[in-house]
Amino acid sequence: MANFGFSRLSVVAPYAPHWREARSAVGAPELLLNANETASLAEAVANCTLVIGTGTLTYRKPEQKVVLLPDLAPLVRGAMKQGGRMALVFGPEKHGLTREDLSHCHLLVEIPTDARQPSMNLGQAVAVCLYELAARAFATDGGPTEKAAAGLAAAPTSGRLELLASLVELAMVRADYSPLAMREANRHDLRLLLRRLAPSEKDVRRILGLFRRILWRLER
Amino acid sequence: MANFGFSRLSVVAPYAPHWREARSAVGAPELLLNANETASLAEAVANCTLVIGTGTLTYRKPEQKVVLLPDLAPLVRGAMKQGGRMALVFGPEKHGLTREDLSHCHLLVEIPTDARQPSMNLGQAVAVCLYELAARAFATDGGPTEKAAAGLAAAPTSGRLELLASLVELAMVRADYSPLAMREANRHDLRLLLRRLAPSEKDVRRILGLFRRILWRLER
Repeated sequence: MANFGFSRLSVVAPYAPHWREARSAVGAPELLLNANETASLAEAVANCTLVIGTGTLTYRKPEQKVVLLPDLAPLVRGAMKQGGRMALVFGPEKHGLTREDLSHCHLLVEIPTDARQPSMNLGQAVAVCLYELAARAFATDGGPTEKAAAGLAAAPTSGRLELLASLVELAMVRADYSPLAMREANRHDLRLLLRRLAPSEKDVRRILGLFRRILWRLER
Repeated sequence: MANFGFSRLSVVAPYAPHWREARSAVGAPELLLNANETASLAEAVANCTLVIGTGTLTYRKPEQKVVLLPDLAPLVRGAMKQGGRMALVFGPEKHGLTREDLSHCHLLVEIPTDARQPSMNLGQAVAVCLYELAARAFATDGGPTEKAAAGLAAAPTSGRLELLASLVELAMVRADYSPLAMREANRHDLRLLLRRLAPSEKDVRRILGLFRRILWRLER
């Protein structure tokens, strides 16, 4: 991260003894000392407008758009033109991101690797992704795609999308939309749906207003 | 290396106990088992037509052309169109490549890193370089630069350039070109010169013929 000029590290529910040890080590870099620790991924990405998941997708069928890393820069440049913050999410080395983790992501990025050895070392995967972003998405020269994004409306943060999802979910429950056993599956699908639809912050404000009204009605 | 489809690893003068241990470890990957071990860098790159050195150049003034990693692919694609083999050379993590090592390189590549933290972990530097080459130099789609290289003549291997350098050096000695104390410095400059001139294999054959003749004359 330091090599490529990134400074905001968030660690989600770390294993306490290892995390304590890493941070208190002699010469622990500033990045670790300043790292943000959260209990959930939702909390870690709450103020981000673009959340990108990583990992090998060889053995799973992703539910979001998947972009190859060499094609990511124009997309990120476009999205960041609207302002806002981006998060790149990495899972534990052994099993990667869970399905639940991925439901917080707007899109997934895949590092193109050899089919015979697709699984990468975590530190190397991070280095490769950050190199690509630093050299091609956040380089100062800009690119032809910047113009295309200039007219876009501001994107909502993940926290706003979560708030909207929770209100929609509550409305589903109040309206007896589906059996309680389906609640988890519905929540998952709803998260994915909202990120795929990519509403602007203005849209979110409008839909929130609508669902507040619906809930008020349902609860009377 | 395996992640990005590279298979030929050469290890130069490794520290024997560590190297033995790594290769004999349970589950040692094929790459390590098939690795080529040489006593010198010259030997390791002898059959290569393009030798690219790596490392942080912050604290040294390189004598060759330096290319930023994001700009390397077109160059490599062009050179490889002539056929031949490329080598990417990494130094030990602590001090990188020596000046002598660098004299075997046609050009140097630098990973663009943050000025506050330019020095990279070796494994991560390798991953970043191989990702870039796999995605952009050796990807199957080709590029506009391929055409530009189509008319070039075949390049000589490093072994051929070394042979030429040794003959030129011998001629210098036989001709009392400069004091013996200058021999090392001359050898170094000669290596750099030959790589900067980038003669074709046909040129090398011709110059070799000339120096064989000169030597024959000098030794009579």
